[in-house]
Amino acid sequence: MSKTESPTPCHDGEKTVTQPHKKALLNRLNRIAGQVKGISNMIESDRYCIDILTQISAIQSALNAVVMQLIEDHTKGCVRKAIWEGDGDVAISELMGVLKKINR
Amino acid sequence: MSKTESPTPCHDGEKTVTQPHKKALLNRLNRIAGQVKGISNMIESDRYCIDILTQISAIQSALNAVVMQLIEDHTKGCVRKAIWEGDGDVAISELMGVLKKINR
Amino acid sequence: MSKTESPTPCHDGEKTVTQPHKKALLNRLNRIAGQVKGISNMIESDRYCIDILTQISAIQSALNAVVMQLIEDHTKGCVRKAIWEGDGDVAISELMGVLKKINR
Amino acid sequence: MSKTESPTPCHDGEKTVTQPHKKALLNRLNRIAGQVKGISNMIESDRYCIDILTQISAIQSALNAVVMQLIEDHTKGCVRKAIWEGDGDVAISELMGVLKKINR
Repeated sequence: MSKTESPTPCHDGEKTVTQPHKKALLNRLNRIAGQVKGISNMIESDRYCIDILTQISAIQSALNAVVMQLIEDHTKGCVRKAIWEGDGDVAISELMGVLKKINR
Repeated sequence: MSKTESPTPCHDGEKTVTQPHKKALLNRLNRIAGQVKGISNMIESDRYCIDILTQISAIQSALNAVVMQLIEDHTKGCVRKAIWEGDGDVAISELMGVLKKINR
Repeated sequence: MSKTESPTPCHDGEKTVTQPHKKALLNRLNRIAGQVKGISNMIESDRYCIDILTQISAIQSALNAVVMQLIEDHTKGCVRKAIWEGDGDVAISELMGVLKKINR
Repeated sequence: MSKTESPTPCHDGEKTVTQPHKKALLNRLNRIAGQVKGISNMIESDRYCIDILTQISAIQSALNAVVMQLIEDHTKGCVRKAIWEGDGDVAISELMGVLKKINR
């Protein structure tokens, strides 16, 4: 499948992928970076542990939302393309590998 | 127990706490901020989804290590102090509340 | 794709699926049922909390292994079939829905 | 602290603990055992993967509720007692060890 003919989000050769929600993902990550900076400030200014932990749980949720978006788009893009091209097993095993790492 | 006699890390009145591992926590958070920036760069440069997800799982692990350190120090500091002062139930319920939010 | 020509594990009409690792899954679940009974016995005989929690973490790992097997087989079976048949988006959204529920 | 004078839930010598919510925990575990049996039945009768995974997520939540009850009662019982008796550090390290194993 030539890239110019079929501009799918997943280009197997170099494995580069333009995320379909690129702008939104970058915005979310900017916000997460700000939240991490906020935790540092809380620790610098001796804020109460429980308040810090509550804010970290918000970061965990925000990161998890990024993860879910990436997994969904990866499955709808790269995995689907691999299945169409007959490479589904490899793509699915790779997806399972990352699911096992995530959130644990 | 008077605060001047026994300077514990947890000051109930204003709920400020100087983290016993403050320096190490700030270093870890700096590194995490860098990792989050790294994810943005990966998305900017169209890196492969699975590689991004693998890096995010590293951030999750790093955040979780911060969480565990904070919970341990909070329990050894504030919760212990509350138990000594007869306010253990409140402190433990508060800790349970944050455990339920964390990592989910 | 006709069902008689291509007996895939996923039959959309009635949504019944013969799990490709059916025997192994049933064995694992039998073992998990035994582990749950074991926890009851530990609580009945006043075993130490930490020992009980350690055993429960083993059940969580065992359940998680069942989950991972089911997700992998579901993706290789039902999701792949749906993608072939042009219903990939629905199948992937359904998968994402269950990923968000699992392990949290 | 003598055991006859102060019947706390945690007896250090033999490390036996009568759970303060023993009856409720046993009821919950009975229900969980039934849910695990239910999963086996679903797999036996070739039920749809997503329905099975949804039911397993309910078991995970139910197990997690047992875990949270045990941790809360352990902290209010054994950990508090250890803190009173000057063995807080050991008890808290042990608790952290189990928190790291749980739910991952």
